Amino acid sequence: MSQSKASVRDVALIVGGGPGLSASCARLFSRNGMQVGVAARNLYKPVLQDLAKGHGIKLYACDASRPESVELLFQNVVRELGTPTLVVHNIDGRVAGIFGKAIIEAEPSMVLDTLRGSAFSAFLIGQHAARLMLDNKIDVNGARGTIIFTNASAALKGFPKSGAFAMACHAKAGLAQSMARELMPKGIHVANVPIDAAIGWKQEDGTRAHRVAGTTIDDNMADPDCIAEVYLQLHRQQRSTWAFEVALRPWTEKW
Amino acid sequence: MSQSKASVRDVALIVGGGPGLSASCARLFSRNGMQVGVAARNLYKPVLQDLAKGHGIKLYACDASRPESVELLFQNVVRELGTPTLVVHNIDGRVAGIFGKAIIEAEPSMVLDTLRGSAFSAFLIGQHAARLMLDNKIDVNGARGTIIFTNASAALKGFPKSGAFAMACHAKAGLAQSMARELMPKGIHVANVPIDAAIGWKQEDGTRAHRVAGTTIDDNMADPDCIAEVYLQLHRQQRSTWAFEVALRPWTEKW
Amino acid sequence: MSQSKASVRDVALIVGGGPGLSASCARLFSRNGMQVGVAARNLYKPVLQDLAKGHGIKLYACDASRPESVELLFQNVVRELGTPTLVVHNIDGRVAGIFGKAIIEAEPSMVLDTLRGSAFSAFLIGQHAARLMLDNKIDVNGARGTIIFTNASAALKGFPKSGAFAMACHAKAGLAQSMARELMPKGIHVANVPIDAAIGWKQEDGTRAHRVAGTTIDDNMADPDCIAEVYLQLHRQQRSTWAFEVALRPWTEKW
Amino acid sequence: MSQSKASVRDVALIVGGGPGLSASCARLFSRNGMQVGVAARNLYKPVLQDLAKGHGIKLYACDASRPESVELLFQNVVRELGTPTLVVHNIDGRVAGIFGKAIIEAEPSMVLDTLRGSAFSAFLIGQHAARLMLDNKIDVNGARGTIIFTNASAALKGFPKSGAFAMACHAKAGLAQSMARELMPKGIHVANVPIDAAIGWKQEDGTRAHRVAGTTIDDNMADPDCIAEVYLQLHRQQRSTWAFEVALRPWTEKW
Repeated sequence: MSQSKASVRDVALIVGGGPGLSASCARLFSRNGMQVGVAARNLYKPVLQDLAKGHGIKLYACDASRPESVELLFQNVVRELGTPTLVVHNIDGRVAGIFGKAIIEAEPSMVLDTLRGSAFSAFLIGQHAARLMLDNKIDVNGARGTIIFTNASAALKGFPKSGAFAMACHAKAGLAQSMARELMPKGIHVANVPIDAAIGWKQEDGTRAHRVAGTTIDDNMADPDCIAEVYLQLHRQQRSTWAFEVALRPWTEKW
Repeated sequence: MSQSKASVRDVALIVGGGPGLSASCARLFSRNGMQVGVAARNLYKPVLQDLAKGHGIKLYACDASRPESVELLFQNVVRELGTPTLVVHNIDGRVAGIFGKAIIEAEPSMVLDTLRGSAFSAFLIGQHAARLMLDNKIDVNGARGTIIFTNASAALKGFPKSGAFAMACHAKAGLAQSMARELMPKGIHVANVPIDAAIGWKQEDGTRAHRVAGTTIDDNMADPDCIAEVYLQLHRQQRSTWAFEVALRPWTEKW
Repeated sequence: MSQSKASVRDVALIVGGGPGLSASCARLFSRNGMQVGVAARNLYKPVLQDLAKGHGIKLYACDASRPESVELLFQNVVRELGTPTLVVHNIDGRVAGIFGKAIIEAEPSMVLDTLRGSAFSAFLIGQHAARLMLDNKIDVNGARGTIIFTNASAALKGFPKSGAFAMACHAKAGLAQSMARELMPKGIHVANVPIDAAIGWKQEDGTRAHRVAGTTIDDNMADPDCIAEVYLQLHRQQRSTWAFEVALRPWTEKW
Repeated sequence: MSQSKASVRDVALIVGGGPGLSASCARLFSRNGMQVGVAARNLYKPVLQDLAKGHGIKLYACDASRPESVELLFQNVVRELGTPTLVVHNIDGRVAGIFGKAIIEAEPSMVLDTLRGSAFSAFLIGQHAARLMLDNKIDVNGARGTIIFTNASAALKGFPKSGAFAMACHAKAGLAQSMARELMPKGIHVANVPIDAAIGWKQEDGTRAHRVAGTTIDDNMADPDCIAEVYLQLHRQQRSTWAFEVALRPWTEKW
């Protein structure tokens, strides 16, 4: 059933680009016949150049926390790839130095930047995706499109010494929930996927790579290829059985 | 990656048998190369006889709320099919007449029967499945087996006039959560899947059927084939990214 | 405002009797002018005899997991004290030996006894309380009565090696939630109070006592007098602002 | 027990000022012997002038979404009233026009203003309160101080057509939870109180007032005096039994 989905040409946009989940999503979606775009603030990372050269993935420079930049992104994607049917917001927005800070030591400007970088950018991306998707035709699964928000365990639980990150992740979860209740009855599948672990990195050749060179993904780190597979499954769910939230964690994780 | 999983011969046991989710699971698992058994109190339903004749599925008579009956079931399954690698508990345990009853009108014996039929049977099935699976070899996904508990929206929220059902569904969710935290680090994937809608029925020929003859599954009823597909995906998840809970609902459902 | 509440004579029934929370509730409710009854399986504990002699509290023998015993209890309470306006279900139902057991080692009969002792008894007590309270007059806070279920952290989270207790506590929470949604609009305040810690014991003279003779309540143990105070506050909440769930934990507790 | 608390002079700061909950808190805290300050952007509302004249409450002009303004506020409060022992963040931050907007119509600048006005201001107030309170002596309840965040039902559930408000309320809940886990073991009681209803207004003379002149608080509107009473109870909880979250709703509210 799901396979015949190719009759509507899928266009996937992944916002946030790096050697972990975004690269895995881009490769998997591309292998499954989608047109794929990746948006990132900095396009000059080796992994992004490899995605462009090796997989024909289009790259877009975008600061997803700025309204004009997001508007331009979607204009360019529509013109070059077509209207997106799958949009993944893959930015956790943690400002360097904010994590692990006691609440009394957190720098207010960094807290605001974390909120803007994560939650506000999720709103901007989600809003533009929804606007375009509402005009999409219904595909074989009964959907006009899929919007997936990658989230973190801080969306499920506010941990000590991470007030700013807890705010941002909870905000993103609240947005996703509100959008799901509003847009699912209009044919757009919205999902929130908290990853309850660090996400490993993958080599271009498919072998696993730990974040530290020369080591491999160990058992308490999520494999980004597996997360990408869940995203594809979510995108292909028939509208009679949509999942809104799927928390993923390694078998050894304490929770 | 998931496809090579066939190297360990999968044996699936579905407990609870009817024309909805159990039949869809049995057909899908069988099509995917598994040995499949279905246990039910009454084996003389047409749908079960069709599963046996048309798909080579083994049928087992079992009252899952009785310890001896469950023990015998697993003995027979191991002898005839092999040790299960996938067990689905698919009984909601609602005693006729308990649903929609005001708390002051609920019959105590029916309340106890609902608890036994749903939560206690889930414990018995889960316990036996765990005992056997702990001795399984690790498969290509790093797992010794998968235990899935089908649940209802009453597991997520206690609705008025359904105290007994809320108790049973919450109990099953608590059991699943405890088992997941205990068994996932030992290699057994445990999942709780609340279906936030009525589940439709499917014909043997694959066409949809509403529960009322001659009508089709409408848009606020979950398609059991789609739920079965999610169960297969859960079973094939690599252990670096296990989902514990996946609530499924139709696009038009209020929640 | 709350103080004038005494115009309706409060009758409190505490089900489950011991030297911890039940005794603290009984003493506090009595000091606040209520008629107080305590029901327990075994009335010959020193603390219960002290409550009867020192505070005029009526004792009732009752096995709260048996329908006839609960029916008799309420008949006797109504005749001797009057119709209850506050009922506290204070039984955790843990069968000795069930806690800390791996799921594969739990004895089925103990699991069923835990479900009966905790969740089913909560249903029986709640049902009888509701039946009587629906006929109560509305008091100064706009209520016909208050039903409080004492619960445990296992109601919030299913911990490993405590499947049976997780089932029972989740079931009780589901019951409480269903009853709250059904009965609050009819004027009965229903509350679920998970205590996320061990509960200490108190001496008759008000001094604190650890469970081990000669020691005092330490900082990671909940003081039962403080929990009782929260119960009294819940009972006195005006119906414009009812709390359904209040989880209580010591300041040093990890959660 | 709670009554002897007066030995440490309580200083309460309420941030956000209006005729509903803030005024009720100010009057109740003042009646209970606390020094009380109310901070608001606009001090020239009649209700604030009445609080100042009739109850000796100090007023502070403050834009709680601006770091310098919050810093100045706490400097002035410490100098004029003393170090706060109770701080209530009582701003919902809804920008006029943001509520009830479809996600595709929400104005990005209004979304950001809502996040700043509600969640970011909660961080600023909470951070300053925590810094000061960590130096407070321990009072009779074992606490150095209490920080309460008033929240809304949008913190519990993301409703359709209110994405921005869901983000802000969820963010505030995540912050509160992170602060509670971090600060409770240091002696600061942190609480999140979602009010699952509109909050009514009260007259200076204590009589109830609906928001529409001449009418009274009806039964599906929370009475602000009752909420204030819960805040006082939270402040006086002994540290062996702290509640983190208390959702309050009228008896007739659907949830």
